Amino acid sequence: MRLGPFRFLLLVAILCLASPDARAQAGNVVKYRTTINDVKYVYGVAEPVARLKPGDTLELNTLDGYGNAIQKPGDTTANVKGGFNPLSGPFYIEGAAPGDTLAVTILDVQVDADQGIGTLDSGFAALSKTSYTPMLNPPLPETIWFYAIDHATNSATFHGVDSNYSVKIPLHPFWGCIGVAPSEGEARSSIVPAEFGGNMDSAEVSVGNTLYLPVSVPGALLYLGDGHAAMGDGEVAGSAIEVPLRGRVRVNVIKGQKIDWPRFENDDTIMAVGIYRPLDDALRIAFTELVHWMHKDYGLSELDSYELLSQVAKIHVAEMVDPNYVVIASVQKKYLPAKKK
Amino acid sequence: MRLGPFRFLLLVAILCLASPDARAQAGNVVKYRTTINDVKYVYGVAEPVARLKPGDTLELNTLDGYGNAIQKPGDTTANVKGGFNPLSGPFYIEGAAPGDTLAVTILDVQVDADQGIGTLDSGFAALSKTSYTPMLNPPLPETIWFYAIDHATNSATFHGVDSNYSVKIPLHPFWGCIGVAPSEGEARSSIVPAEFGGNMDSAEVSVGNTLYLPVSVPGALLYLGDGHAAMGDGEVAGSAIEVPLRGRVRVNVIKGQKIDWPRFENDDTIMAVGIYRPLDDALRIAFTELVHWMHKDYGLSELDSYELLSQVAKIHVAEMVDPNYVVIASVQKKYLPAKKK
Amino acid sequence: MRLGPFRFLLLVAILCLASPDARAQAGNVVKYRTTINDVKYVYGVAEPVARLKPGDTLELNTLDGYGNAIQKPGDTTANVKGGFNPLSGPFYIEGAAPGDTLAVTILDVQVDADQGIGTLDSGFAALSKTSYTPMLNPPLPETIWFYAIDHATNSATFHGVDSNYSVKIPLHPFWGCIGVAPSEGEARSSIVPAEFGGNMDSAEVSVGNTLYLPVSVPGALLYLGDGHAAMGDGEVAGSAIEVPLRGRVRVNVIKGQKIDWPRFENDDTIMAVGIYRPLDDALRIAFTELVHWMHKDYGLSELDSYELLSQVAKIHVAEMVDPNYVVIASVQKKYLPAKKK
Amino acid sequence: MRLGPFRFLLLVAILCLASPDARAQAGNVVKYRTTINDVKYVYGVAEPVARLKPGDTLELNTLDGYGNAIQKPGDTTANVKGGFNPLSGPFYIEGAAPGDTLAVTILDVQVDADQGIGTLDSGFAALSKTSYTPMLNPPLPETIWFYAIDHATNSATFHGVDSNYSVKIPLHPFWGCIGVAPSEGEARSSIVPAEFGGNMDSAEVSVGNTLYLPVSVPGALLYLGDGHAAMGDGEVAGSAIEVPLRGRVRVNVIKGQKIDWPRFENDDTIMAVGIYRPLDDALRIAFTELVHWMHKDYGLSELDSYELLSQVAKIHVAEMVDPNYVVIASVQKKYLPAKKK
Repeated sequence: MRLGPFRFLLLVAILCLASPDARAQAGNVVKYRTTINDVKYVYGVAEPVARLKPGDTLELNTLDGYGNAIQKPGDTTANVKGGFNPLSGPFYIEGAAPGDTLAVTILDVQVDADQGIGTLDSGFAALSKTSYTPMLNPPLPETIWFYAIDHATNSATFHGVDSNYSVKIPLHPFWGCIGVAPSEGEARSSIVPAEFGGNMDSAEVSVGNTLYLPVSVPGALLYLGDGHAAMGDGEVAGSAIEVPLRGRVRVNVIKGQKIDWPRFENDDTIMAVGIYRPLDDALRIAFTELVHWMHKDYGLSELDSYELLSQVAKIHVAEMVDPNYVVIASVQKKYLPAKKK
Repeated sequence: MRLGPFRFLLLVAILCLASPDARAQAGNVVKYRTTINDVKYVYGVAEPVARLKPGDTLELNTLDGYGNAIQKPGDTTANVKGGFNPLSGPFYIEGAAPGDTLAVTILDVQVDADQGIGTLDSGFAALSKTSYTPMLNPPLPETIWFYAIDHATNSATFHGVDSNYSVKIPLHPFWGCIGVAPSEGEARSSIVPAEFGGNMDSAEVSVGNTLYLPVSVPGALLYLGDGHAAMGDGEVAGSAIEVPLRGRVRVNVIKGQKIDWPRFENDDTIMAVGIYRPLDDALRIAFTELVHWMHKDYGLSELDSYELLSQVAKIHVAEMVDPNYVVIASVQKKYLPAKKK
Repeated sequence: MRLGPFRFLLLVAILCLASPDARAQAGNVVKYRTTINDVKYVYGVAEPVARLKPGDTLELNTLDGYGNAIQKPGDTTANVKGGFNPLSGPFYIEGAAPGDTLAVTILDVQVDADQGIGTLDSGFAALSKTSYTPMLNPPLPETIWFYAIDHATNSATFHGVDSNYSVKIPLHPFWGCIGVAPSEGEARSSIVPAEFGGNMDSAEVSVGNTLYLPVSVPGALLYLGDGHAAMGDGEVAGSAIEVPLRGRVRVNVIKGQKIDWPRFENDDTIMAVGIYRPLDDALRIAFTELVHWMHKDYGLSELDSYELLSQVAKIHVAEMVDPNYVVIASVQKKYLPAKKK
Repeated sequence: MRLGPFRFLLLVAILCLASPDARAQAGNVVKYRTTINDVKYVYGVAEPVARLKPGDTLELNTLDGYGNAIQKPGDTTANVKGGFNPLSGPFYIEGAAPGDTLAVTILDVQVDADQGIGTLDSGFAALSKTSYTPMLNPPLPETIWFYAIDHATNSATFHGVDSNYSVKIPLHPFWGCIGVAPSEGEARSSIVPAEFGGNMDSAEVSVGNTLYLPVSVPGALLYLGDGHAAMGDGEVAGSAIEVPLRGRVRVNVIKGQKIDWPRFENDDTIMAVGIYRPLDDALRIAFTELVHWMHKDYGLSELDSYELLSQVAKIHVAEMVDPNYVVIASVQKKYLPAKKK
């Protein structure tokens, strides 16, 4: 069926009534093609590679955490040039100013390769010594696992390197790195997550969720990278199934709403992110943020929020392997009063 | 119908073939009624209150974490006599000897009251100062929430103490305390979880799961208590919806299999428990135990187990409020090779 | 000059007036000889091996942390029977009751052997994996260092096991283990320090200092063991120069004064002990105890105490290798107001 | 007396033989006057304010951690413009290149004011909630203490704000902030210490010590600030006695020697710095660096270094209040073999 102009406008009107996000969906699509020549390795102030208006959709591809430099048996992390976690961006969001909140809704994420890799090295790990939890024990051998990606069954296949065993793992693609320029003039490595987002390695950066980030510089300066085809809680051996990705995200700006840490939201759940180490403090950050959120937007007292979370909260340990750890505390909206206003 | 000896043996053989647990299910039911007069406050060596054979089922009730002493508005933790988390037991398991593993399968758990309570006090909390993370900040007010239990809808109702709001929470009853006498002559408070189990506050102690505990003294000496009607991850305000429980558990002894930390298992999943603080170390304990388990029982190398968990593991932060914290790392069996032998 | 009886009594009277401790020095000396046959491996309630009155002096020897079982090259920790850190005691202090404070003044400590040992094993270490900070890295080799004790020069000699190097280390002998029966019916391993003292590995347990411990059972039930000839801050490789000791301690009871954690004091300094993990929490416990002590006994407000400590406090990380860590926060009395009353 | 060329060369030769630092002492003195108009708030790449050659001495003043904005009762941290810890610099050191080590010898430090201040606020504290260890407890009141500096007696006087008490504290002036531009393109806040040094709050930055810092950008780009007149271990309430300073430091470059973390050295002692959180990991970093240092420069095996440190190491907890914590592990040279070569 072809729509005449009137019917088209009617449909738009209906969509706009049906969903508060509908008008945003009417924004432009900005396409961006990432190559190894224009990636960045810090979240900070840099010349924007593209500009978006609130409501626009960014369609882009990203390189994997090794700049796509590990492709076949024998390749190692020594093949990586420039650094780990090359970032696409920055993308300048018109109208975003310090003190605002950037909303990034994940519309589509696809694995952009037929293969993913997992690596065990000395820098990132929860169960073996690292730069920041150093030990005198001998290291484990640096090892790389190759996962075949089967787009038809939407799965990746694990093959043991010293065990005769393989198994399929369902894909859940997401960006490990997503963040904006930090506050107070800092520039931070693409390895580290913090208040500005960054290497959060959170499976929540996937279709259906909106990520909120605090804006600290004009234009917010959004970066993405470090695609994951699938990952377990904690990312304990230090990597996910690392892949290039392609996908679409829609950006919006919430003027004058200041948040201190990243947040996620979908139709069912609100999720507060805490980032630092040890996990104890990451958890405390996430939960105090969630209490403040429930108090401010849903009108529950802090004390009642605290108690209610003791009964119904969920905790997601996203990763314990980057320099800072990521814990996400969440509560389903069905347990909350109606949102204020 | 009466079974002749041949038919009976045939039936036993069929049952044994049908299920490795079948013989156990043929065990006796030992009933035990807990009162405040015979509870214990430490996991340790004490005169058994009852004896079970491997395969027997224990049917019991337990008091709530306050010895059922808080019943109405105005009651406080000052009403509690004897201590927190009064324990039913110890139950002596015939044939259990140091170096064995005790298996406790949760068959049934029911809330044994029409009301549960949640308490905020200065001793247990993730987001406010405690005895072991002391601060100089002023304390929060000691507060008690009363939850009506609705057995028909299988739910508890939260009522705000200073917010005009109430909401129903589905019940998921489990014992917060379950453990055996510790090793090396120790006796440990019913407040603290450790290698012997104890106050693990793990929602995994519920119907369908089997808990494995390391046996350190003759008879293992099993204790249970601290019933919870429902609880969020982390138990962040320091208590669940605290209730008396009644239920049934079946005990078995795995001779000559030594484990260092508690484990859970059901048809789909194996789960290793790590207990200490900070959460980082609890997580490391849980995951190294899980790697060892996968290596020993499922034949994957340690390195391959490590990598596979990086892609498919789940982490459950059971609690971060008791003196020691509890993290449970798990993997679904569908990702593992067939169990050895 | 020889004193006639009158002059002697006069001197005693003067001494008694001069020092509140002088009368205590007039107590009896109770001698106790430890052998491997009567040691204990938990702090808890057990039949006393001797009884002392307040003011009495206990003169005793203690075995080393291996029960003196490692004597020559080739001996290993596998030689150890019964357990680590065998304890002398318990010693019953007449009149000590729950809620009181036991004061133990260290009068004399001597190394009771011509050799000490240092061991590196998998259980205790700050820089290599342990039971409670497990890793998948390969272990370091279990290694034993033998130190010759030179009583004439009051030193021990380090000899490298794989370095051609030796160096003398001055002796500073102290008991690694000193504690009383815990509260609430607990019995704790001689490996673990906690509120009751225990394996604190604090060089403060040496001549000139008084240790205060909270009394939780009638008679307090004092235990000592785990002699150290010398030790660095943190005891990072997991052992000191481990030796048998002999020495004298004087006991006193402060009736009706309840403390929650161990404390030390000498003429110049007050020192509060915090015990748990991570170090952050041990430090918080030590300092909040020190603030409370300054407030209660010296009359400074909590806020002023907090600020003053920010400028003049000292921190001693006694050990980061036992299951719980020990941090001691101290302030010199010259910075404090006069003690109240 | 004028020196002929031969005598001059002879003198140089004698000086060179007499002291490895002698030639450096013959360097120029570069004077720099800091004002609030040219301070920086991040360690990173910026236009140098002055250039020094290896061996030169920098003579400068620095502002206090509040930009000298708090001067009298009633002033608060709200008076602070621009940010906390304004930094003097960057100073470009000729010839310093990535992979080199910058050596900064502290020659002189003087308090440059008649008053210092201590502040308690919500951001920095070990015993009260902060941004990174948040709690729901009510805050402590923001409070400022003023300390009179007595240059004649070299002391500062503490006056209680709600206690009628004052006491003199001896001065030990040092820079809380000293660091270089970080690696990998990062720019870091003057609040945070890390691999590049920064807000280490280490009393070791005082006369007689040399600080080694890893060079990550051409010219190293040295910054100094955040003067302290005196400070206790841990800086527990979140500030030292904060003052402007003036002083002199001599800079040198050790070509081709790469270090990963800051180090200190004086005639008697080598000191390795570990920076992160929790304290456990800061301690592990410091000690593994110290072991590597002893192994590489003094020829002891790692295993023997580990054991020797267990007996003679010292630990200094510099601060537990900044976002990252600082622990310094040290060993006296008298315990080490002769330095190699």
